[in-house]
Amino acid sequence: MAVGWSGLPVLSPVAGVRIGTTKAGIKKADRRDLTVFELSPGSTVAAVFTRNQFFAAPVQVARENMAAVAPQYLLINTGNANAGTGQPGLDAAHACCAALAKQVDCDVQAILPFSTGVISEPLPVDRITAGLPSAVAELNEDAWSRAAEAIMTTDTVPKGASRRFQIAGREYVLTGISKGAGMIRPNMATMLAFIATDVRLSQQHLQAALSEAARLSFNRITVDGDTSTNDACVLVATGQGGGDELVPGDEGYASFMEALQLLCLELAQAIIRDGEGATKLITVAVSEGASEAECELVAYAIAESPLVKTAMFASDPNWGRILAAVGRAGVADLDVTKVQLYLDDLLIADQGARVSGYKEEEAAARVSQEEFTIGVRLGRGEAQASVWTCDLSYDYVRINADYRS
Amino acid sequence: MAVGWSGLPVLSPVAGVRIGTTKAGIKKADRRDLTVFELSPGSTVAAVFTRNQFFAAPVQVARENMAAVAPQYLLINTGNANAGTGQPGLDAAHACCAALAKQVDCDVQAILPFSTGVISEPLPVDRITAGLPSAVAELNEDAWSRAAEAIMTTDTVPKGASRRFQIAGREYVLTGISKGAGMIRPNMATMLAFIATDVRLSQQHLQAALSEAARLSFNRITVDGDTSTNDACVLVATGQGGGDELVPGDEGYASFMEALQLLCLELAQAIIRDGEGATKLITVAVSEGASEAECELVAYAIAESPLVKTAMFASDPNWGRILAAVGRAGVADLDVTKVQLYLDDLLIADQGARVSGYKEEEAAARVSQEEFTIGVRLGRGEAQASVWTCDLSYDYVRINADYRS
Repeated sequence: MAVGWSGLPVLSPVAGVRIGTTKAGIKKADRRDLTVFELSPGSTVAAVFTRNQFFAAPVQVARENMAAVAPQYLLINTGNANAGTGQPGLDAAHACCAALAKQVDCDVQAILPFSTGVISEPLPVDRITAGLPSAVAELNEDAWSRAAEAIMTTDTVPKGASRRFQIAGREYVLTGISKGAGMIRPNMATMLAFIATDVRLSQQHLQAALSEAARLSFNRITVDGDTSTNDACVLVATGQGGGDELVPGDEGYASFMEALQLLCLELAQAIIRDGEGATKLITVAVSEGASEAECELVAYAIAESPLVKTAMFASDPNWGRILAAVGRAGVADLDVTKVQLYLDDLLIADQGARVSGYKEEEAAARVSQEEFTIGVRLGRGEAQASVWTCDLSYDYVRINADYRS
Repeated sequence: MAVGWSGLPVLSPVAGVRIGTTKAGIKKADRRDLTVFELSPGSTVAAVFTRNQFFAAPVQVARENMAAVAPQYLLINTGNANAGTGQPGLDAAHACCAALAKQVDCDVQAILPFSTGVISEPLPVDRITAGLPSAVAELNEDAWSRAAEAIMTTDTVPKGASRRFQIAGREYVLTGISKGAGMIRPNMATMLAFIATDVRLSQQHLQAALSEAARLSFNRITVDGDTSTNDACVLVATGQGGGDELVPGDEGYASFMEALQLLCLELAQAIIRDGEGATKLITVAVSEGASEAECELVAYAIAESPLVKTAMFASDPNWGRILAAVGRAGVADLDVTKVQLYLDDLLIADQGARVSGYKEEEAAARVSQEEFTIGVRLGRGEAQASVWTCDLSYDYVRINADYRS
C-alpha cells in the first residue's frame, strides 16, 4: 500500500476532454488496459519525454506526430512498453494510430501513442485495435479515475489530483493522473502523466509552463535511479473554460502556474509514495549550496544511496551513511566542517561529527515517521534543491526479481 | 557464503613483514579485531586512499604521517571506523599511534592507522591501547591468514592471495589481504587491502605501480555505488628478497607489475564475491567505445542499476533493463542501432531490438550461472573497460537494515 494513501481524490472533469477505457487483454485478461483521450478542437498540447537514448517506439512516434499537426487523441496502453523493439516496434505504434485514426476519422498524425509495461516484447497490435471500438464508445468527460486505473503497471494504487483556481473571477480546473512505481529517475519524468486544464494558452507558452513545472516535480523524484525508456508527461489546455488566452507576465498566468506546479508535485510525490516496496516518503532538501546543480548532486547522492535507503527502511538514523553520501557526491572543494545535517528540525551533525548532546532516540523518532526530511546545509551559498525518494525494502527486491514471472 | 569461495588459499610469508593480531574487544568480545604490521627497515610503502571528502580520521592521519617519515608499522582495527568523529576522532587516532610508538620505541609518525566498522561512534582508545602489548608479542611472519580474519567487518569470508614471480632467476613473493563487502565503489578502493612483496622499489615507483594496479582492479568494482570514508590500500616492498631495485622499463619491473595487477584483481574480485547478499559475480565488459571514460560510464550504469541487479538475482535475462541502463548512461550522440548486447558469448540484442531467433531459455541459462559476463559493444571505437559487480538480493537489504542492531 502506498505511503500516506487515503484513496484517490475526486477528479474533476475538464471541459473539452473525453476519456474512454476498455479491457483489451493486452497482457492480463479482465483488466482495463487501453485508454483513449479525445481533445476538443482548438486545444493546445505540450509534452516532455524521457531522455533515455533507448527511447521506446511510441515516444518516437509521439514526438514526430506532435511536430507535424495539433494532437486530437492520446492512445495509451499498459501491459507492454513497446520498447527495445526496433523497426517492428515503430511499425506497431503506427498501426495502432492508423486504426484509431480510421475509426474516428482524423489525421493519423493527430494521434499520440503511449505505452508502458514489459520491455522488449512485441506489441500485440491486434488486441489493441480490436479494443478500440469499445474504448471510443465509452468516451465521456467523467472517466479520469477510471483512466488512472487503466494506466497502472506495478502501481499498487491509482494516482490523480485536481485543483481549482480563479482568474478574473472565473473558476478553472486542472486535473491530472500519473502512473509509475519503479524505474523512476529523471529525466524527464520517468513515468506517464496526463494533465488537462480548461484555460487557454498557446502551444509555445503551454510547453514552457510544463517544462518548468516538470523540472521541479517529476524531474526531482527517484526510486532507484533507473530512467525508463517510455516516460512522458502531457499537458492539454482546452480553452473551454472561457476567458482570455493566458500569457506569461499576466496575473492569470501566475495563478495557473502556481496551480500547475502544485498539481505536478502532488502527482510526482504520489509516484514516490507508491514506489516499489516503499514504506516511507523522504524529502531530501539540500540548501546553502553555491549552485542549484551542486545541491541536486548532493540530494541525488543521498536519495539514491542503497545504504541510506536500507537504513531508513530500518528506521535507523545511521547519519554516517548520509555524510558519506555527501562526501562522495562530487562537490568540488567541499569544506566538510561547514556541513550541517538535519532530520526534520533536529540538528544531527555539525563540523564533521555528531552534535554534542546527540540523542539516538530523538533521531530514531524522526526517521520512524512515514514522512520526514533529510536536510543538508552545505554552508557555501544561497542555492537549494529538493528531491523526493522512498526507502529500499525487501519488497523492492521481491517486486523486481519477480516482475516478469 | 561468498560466490565461488573455496577457502582461503595459502598465504606465503613476505620476508621483512611481521604481523600480530589480538582480541581487543573493540565491538565484540572474543574476536580478533586488532592487527599490527611491522615492516623491516628499508621498506618502501605506497598507499591509495578514499576520495570521499568526509574521509575518516585515520585516513587523514595516515596521509600526514606518510608524507612525514618512512612508515614502519601499520595499526588496523575493525569494529569502529573512527569516521564522522571530528576533532575527537583525530585525537583518538593520534593517541593509538602514540601508544604503539611508545611500546615499540619508534617515531609516532612512522605508524599508519586504519579503521573499519561502524561510522560515527567514538573510537574506544583504551581498549585498543590495552590490546597492543599482546598484538606486538604475537608479531611473526606467518600470520597473514590470521590478519585476513582480523580485519573483517560484514565480510562472510577472509580474503587473501599470494603470487610468486621470477626476476633474473630469483623467486619473489607478493601476498595481500583485503576486506570489504558493502559501501563498495571507487574511488579509491572502497575497502582495506594490505599487500607486501620482497622486491625492492623506490617509494615513487612503488606508488606509481600501486596507483596503476588499483585503477584497473579495486577502482573497477561496485556493490552498491557507495564509497566508504575509510578506504585504503597499502603496498609494501621490503627488498628482503635481494636483487636489484626495480625500475620502470626493466624486464623485472614488468614481471612485478603483471603479478601485482593479477593479485589486485583477485583481491578486488574477492570483495565482490563476498558482496553483501551476493549470489553472483558479474563482469560488465563494455567495448568498442570512443573512450575508456565512456566505457566506464556505461559499465557503471549497468553495474549499479538496481533493476538489472534484481533481475540477475532472479536469473531473469531481462535485457531490456540492460539496454535502458545503456541509454541513460550519458554517452553523447549514442547511435543505439549500433549497440550490441551479449550474455557471455550469446548475442542477445542488436539494432535496438532482440536478435531474431532469440531463445529466452538460452539467455536464462547464461544468467543462471554463478559467474557470467554482460557484454556491451558500443560500435563507436576501440576503447574498452570492465567493471565487476554482484546481484541485489533480499540479503543485501537484510544486512544493511540490520547492520547496527
